[in-house]
Amino acid sequence: MLQPTSNGHRYDLTSPTALPKAGGFLWNQKMMIQITCRGYATAQFMQPEPAKYAHAPNLEAKTFMQPEQNYYAHHPGRFVYIKDEETGDIFSAPYEPVRAKLDKFVFSVGKSDISWTVEKAGVRVEMSFLLPTEDVAELWSIKLTNISDRERKFAVYPYFPTGYKSWMNQEAGWNDNVGGIVASGKTPYQKAEDYPKTKYLKDKTYFLCEEKPVSWEARQEAFEGEGGLHAPSSLNQEQLSNSDARYETPTSAVQYRITLKASEEREFRFLFGPAYDDKEILHMRTKYLNKEAFATSSKAYQDYIEKGSGSLKIQTPDKELDNLVNNWLARQVYYHGDVNRLTTDPQTRNYLQDNMGMSYIKTDVARKAIITAVSQQEENGSMPDGILLAEGAELKYINQIPHTDHCVWLPIALDIYLNETADYALLDEKVTSMHGDTYTVFERFSRAMQWLLHARDNRGLSFIAQGDWCDPMNMVGPKGVGVSGWLTVATAYALKLWADICQAAGKSDIADTYRTFAKEVNACANKHLWDGDWYARGITDDNVTFGIKEDVEGRMWLNPQAWSILGGAASPEQIEKILPQVDEQLGTPYGVVMFAPPFTAMREDVGRVTQKYPGQGENGSVYNHAGAFYVWALYTISESDRAYKILRQMIPGPSEEDYVQRGQLPVYIPNYYRGGHKMFPRTAGRSSQLFNTGTVSWVYRSLVEGLCGLKGVREGLSIQPQLPSDWAGMKATRVFRGAKFEVDIRRADVESVKVVVDGKVLSDGVIKEIEAGRTYTVDVEIART
Amino acid sequence: MLQPTSNGHRYDLTSPTALPKAGGFLWNQKMMIQITCRGYATAQFMQPEPAKYAHAPNLEAKTFMQPEQNYYAHHPGRFVYIKDEETGDIFSAPYEPVRAKLDKFVFSVGKSDISWTVEKAGVRVEMSFLLPTEDVAELWSIKLTNISDRERKFAVYPYFPTGYKSWMNQEAGWNDNVGGIVASGKTPYQKAEDYPKTKYLKDKTYFLCEEKPVSWEARQEAFEGEGGLHAPSSLNQEQLSNSDARYETPTSAVQYRITLKASEEREFRFLFGPAYDDKEILHMRTKYLNKEAFATSSKAYQDYIEKGSGSLKIQTPDKELDNLVNNWLARQVYYHGDVNRLTTDPQTRNYLQDNMGMSYIKTDVARKAIITAVSQQEENGSMPDGILLAEGAELKYINQIPHTDHCVWLPIALDIYLNETADYALLDEKVTSMHGDTYTVFERFSRAMQWLLHARDNRGLSFIAQGDWCDPMNMVGPKGVGVSGWLTVATAYALKLWADICQAAGKSDIADTYRTFAKEVNACANKHLWDGDWYARGITDDNVTFGIKEDVEGRMWLNPQAWSILGGAASPEQIEKILPQVDEQLGTPYGVVMFAPPFTAMREDVGRVTQKYPGQGENGSVYNHAGAFYVWALYTISESDRAYKILRQMIPGPSEEDYVQRGQLPVYIPNYYRGGHKMFPRTAGRSSQLFNTGTVSWVYRSLVEGLCGLKGVREGLSIQPQLPSDWAGMKATRVFRGAKFEVDIRRADVESVKVVVDGKVLSDGVIKEIEAGRTYTVDVEIART
Repeated sequence: MLQPTSNGHRYDLTSPTALPKAGGFLWNQKMMIQITCRGYATAQFMQPEPAKYAHAPNLEAKTFMQPEQNYYAHHPGRFVYIKDEETGDIFSAPYEPVRAKLDKFVFSVGKSDISWTVEKAGVRVEMSFLLPTEDVAELWSIKLTNISDRERKFAVYPYFPTGYKSWMNQEAGWNDNVGGIVASGKTPYQKAEDYPKTKYLKDKTYFLCEEKPVSWEARQEAFEGEGGLHAPSSLNQEQLSNSDARYETPTSAVQYRITLKASEEREFRFLFGPAYDDKEILHMRTKYLNKEAFATSSKAYQDYIEKGSGSLKIQTPDKELDNLVNNWLARQVYYHGDVNRLTTDPQTRNYLQDNMGMSYIKTDVARKAIITAVSQQEENGSMPDGILLAEGAELKYINQIPHTDHCVWLPIALDIYLNETADYALLDEKVTSMHGDTYTVFERFSRAMQWLLHARDNRGLSFIAQGDWCDPMNMVGPKGVGVSGWLTVATAYALKLWADICQAAGKSDIADTYRTFAKEVNACANKHLWDGDWYARGITDDNVTFGIKEDVEGRMWLNPQAWSILGGAASPEQIEKILPQVDEQLGTPYGVVMFAPPFTAMREDVGRVTQKYPGQGENGSVYNHAGAFYVWALYTISESDRAYKILRQMIPGPSEEDYVQRGQLPVYIPNYYRGGHKMFPRTAGRSSQLFNTGTVSWVYRSLVEGLCGLKGVREGLSIQPQLPSDWAGMKATRVFRGAKFEVDIRRADVESVKVVVDGKVLSDGVIKEIEAGRTYTVDVEIART
Repeated sequence: MLQPTSNGHRYDLTSPTALPKAGGFLWNQKMMIQITCRGYATAQFMQPEPAKYAHAPNLEAKTFMQPEQNYYAHHPGRFVYIKDEETGDIFSAPYEPVRAKLDKFVFSVGKSDISWTVEKAGVRVEMSFLLPTEDVAELWSIKLTNISDRERKFAVYPYFPTGYKSWMNQEAGWNDNVGGIVASGKTPYQKAEDYPKTKYLKDKTYFLCEEKPVSWEARQEAFEGEGGLHAPSSLNQEQLSNSDARYETPTSAVQYRITLKASEEREFRFLFGPAYDDKEILHMRTKYLNKEAFATSSKAYQDYIEKGSGSLKIQTPDKELDNLVNNWLARQVYYHGDVNRLTTDPQTRNYLQDNMGMSYIKTDVARKAIITAVSQQEENGSMPDGILLAEGAELKYINQIPHTDHCVWLPIALDIYLNETADYALLDEKVTSMHGDTYTVFERFSRAMQWLLHARDNRGLSFIAQGDWCDPMNMVGPKGVGVSGWLTVATAYALKLWADICQAAGKSDIADTYRTFAKEVNACANKHLWDGDWYARGITDDNVTFGIKEDVEGRMWLNPQAWSILGGAASPEQIEKILPQVDEQLGTPYGVVMFAPPFTAMREDVGRVTQKYPGQGENGSVYNHAGAFYVWALYTISESDRAYKILRQMIPGPSEEDYVQRGQLPVYIPNYYRGGHKMFPRTAGRSSQLFNTGTVSWVYRSLVEGLCGLKGVREGLSIQPQLPSDWAGMKATRVFRGAKFEVDIRRADVESVKVVVDGKVLSDGVIKEIEAGRTYTVDVEIART
């Protein structure tokens, strides 16, 4: 195995397996490499800090979710190996890690559960899991059915890897007290003052078995052996080795041995999750790990999801759209408003937009969010970069970087909340901020608008600092000089909305004032940012206007166009120029890109966005959030066909080619699709796979208030549908202020929209004095095209 | 593939391969999980910050090296696949990723290169690589030899994965201009002020081929396909697909197709490394990628390593020890002093000890380090937690946490430097610090000693703050009250050494003063810390003495014992009590543990060390650094058998069982072996695989000045060997002050050491007036045992 020292200058190892980590190292003044007998290497070089040039294909460093990236063999997962005890043949469900060719495979994404059915060599494996509504745990069920015509013997090995836990402490083993494998760790820290923060973390991971297995492995290495994940060595033995992990990578793998007669089935249940101690694990076991509790939890979770089913159902000629709207879109909106993307310091703009969507789902949550947001307003009227939601939470990462747009989102979120509720009393609520000052909501909004007016240069354009809505546009204005074209026209939009709210609240004098301000801001935008056929994106610290005809990259940006329409900067004549430019320069089969052409290299006066991958993220991708702004803008100017087209492009499919190209099921709208469809056609359209996005509130709004035209106003429900011109009609069910509206929209020989409620024609198209609990039948006729 | 929507509540995917990332997600108020059709999952829960409970089995987050942990399929490595083009059979060298059973395997760790020879099915693959001395690059050679008796056809696929580079930007492709695959990325950053730091980073990774391959893959996914790394799908085709990576995980795999007659061989050369741009890559190609440059670089690197061959060679009855000392140990010492563990802010104690070792290798480097260290002395005489070595470097991680021991290491490093050089002129050099004050080296050392004397409580014991040499002992004294038992006796040792240096420098008054201080400190230690049979480790903020008989865990600690011997606190009577306690309580077959028994749970008044894995790292492992202190202490009291025994335990082997248990080749001494050999016998003795350790300077010193007894003094070389009692003799070659000493040590009928140089007996055993360039023949007789 280890050869005797031959000449003292080298050691010869004759087998790679007996000392699997044995290795050597070399270095020079600038680098170091350690390499093992198997070829594994760790190399570092200095520049001047230590850096690597070869990395693991993974993201296990603390970072945001990046599901667009590839998975690799050892990525965490939930698997079960099945061994035919007569032949020794092995496969795994749902597919990884063995990747055997299956006879049948069904992956089933439900609104409240996810499951698989896999068949291979006469056995059916059904895997499914669900979540409880209140606790952190996964409730897994694995069912085997003998679908052959004779008795069969199987070994069944659920394999739930826990992975590397901590350099301070990690171990795992079977724990008879709780009936499962428990992996322990210690969240690492170095500073004594960080200890209290880590003291009560749930550092244990449990994998509990309802039925005691015959054997197990708690050490990853013991499970895999030389076979690797596709053919673990431990499966070659009659039983697993009952290994433990002692400062080694833990895992959870257990074995059952079963005999099934023809058609016989056998179901196993498991619980997987984190815990603080054994007591908590035992409590979880008692609460959840049995058939009845699984059934109860499943029902409870369905109810929980059902509570977010939204305020719109549709029946249209577009069945894919119907499906998205009726089943998935409100669910995605609900998710955002319900958990705020699982962060303790959501960006202020995200928080307000996510709750803007929540106005259609749960108005009380939206109301509370508006108050929470303004309770963190700065003393000068501006809004912080993030809203703190938990005790001890801090502004982190991107929220430590000054952005100037957060006030804009206040009247936008409020507008929709008031549309849905007419709860103008909110404006009079007094809110004492975290800084100790007390103002009414109305006053706080006014102060925010004043701050926006104030934060402009002597040309009347809005400062951008280190970014606006576009986070990585961080070098346009770090000196405090550069301005944002988008934020300027967005400021006008915010002022206009606020003026409308003031008007509706009976404060027409104040409304007039803000309307005047909005006009003034728009005039400034038109003077300095109109480039002949579209609006520029901004002007840098060094007075370079960008997003204009002369630019080769980043020539035209979507946001300034959309928001100049929303805010009134763009005249009808200007809009007539803008729209075809958007079509031509920004249009793709997958939606409109955020700007084009994408940057291929750093442009130092724009910033980080120009260093992102061309066509990915904010660098010229189909960034659906921006697309959704534009769609809504198009509905506000009755460009219903253009709006519908882009809206439709946001949903993958329905052709197989399209699903494959995007790589996503149509169960949510991702934050982006890859752009650069001329530069990189192979990857263009590919989904980011990320469901966290401000997009959905705007899409939902566009569907409810735009396409269906079922928009709340102070007095009631305004009806003004904007169907695509080739639709003969559609049906919609709208829930609004506690009442239900069954709306049937048809083309007819009318000049403008004709609304009939319970047989009565409404002259202004607004259903007033709505009675909660009542169902209204609404017939709508719209003009033929 | 994608089933038509059945009922709108679910989507059914009938194949896992066409939409490999298609998935769904579920959430509740406290958690979220995203899961794909293949079973891959990403789950997060809130506590209150987002956390994971299932991790990838890897360390790709920014962290220190942890080579003790397991590798996994996609860990970075350097591999070559070989396909027999007639049979289609595949294997890989050196072993991963295919893990085929090989006919022959040799892994060969050289001092200046590392290579493998692998044979399988009639082909021999020789892989080797080396580094240039000045640049960052790996020079790889892969040679195939047909060792069968007929013509063969092979496809050869070097595979050097580059892995995930960045969420901002990553791509890769064949670059004809440079003749290789180039992967590009962008080191991520968020704050504009971080941009300049990242602007000129070497963000590209190149894999250059001397000979142009017939095909390649630059996208990991394209290379692996469904086959996985053990059987990549792309190898089933006649050629690779020439893929690129566009915001996808890059890789470097190329293909050659060769025909070899019987006995014919074919060699390929490659260059792998990081670069800033194509120009630099091209420059590297020209400079290195050819046979002559490989040969030149190999020779240059051998010369470079040879410069660190140290000042001692031995021939003893212990051949394993000879080999370690003559080939590897000085190399490891050299590494430390040469590159300071590849950090820009080495901990002050590490920096001083690493350079203490460098005094035996390159005295000028050690001299410069001592000056660099004191040039960063604080104005109050204390030393900072780290020494900054590069412009713009900052104190990071553990160096931001206050430790109180750094001054102790100054006289220790200086002592050895002066022993080796007698360069007392150094003491008079004026050093202006980074704070602007100017003092001589002598004054700076005195000020450091004064600070140590000052930083004690009213009992005369040394404050520990958030740690001493033991970093994670961070909760003993955070309130500024707790004291360190070790640091107290170590302070006495530092004072004593400084007194000796003052004496040798002709300042006997000052020497007397410091000797008096040392005695006083030792008296305080004996009054408050002597526990009857050993010294306590410290007294906490709340006045709890620990490391004493009453403790069930952490009962006895090694450092206070070793340093009370070194510093003179322990009287001969006390030493007589201490030594058997160390043997009994701390001894293991793998060396002495740092303390015992290990902590199994948090002890809040001790700190982080108690949360480390029992028997790992500082929690009761065989922490060789502490063991080496003890060995040196034993030599200072002529406990040569005890010293040799422990020294010997630090080297793995020579039995096969021992190599396997430790899992390491004896080419370096690791920072620790697992302890807890009663608690966890399966893993006890296992090597940390980490070669960064202050251990080696002390071991080298113990060998040179202890075992061989060839110690520098101001006047020359003192000779006082301390051979193990069962050795009849040994030979040594010592390089010292430019001269060479061929020393032959034999047992003889003498009462004390008898030293004969060139035929003349030296009465005091000190060779004086040494002439550089001369070779001395030294015969030494020592008493029989």
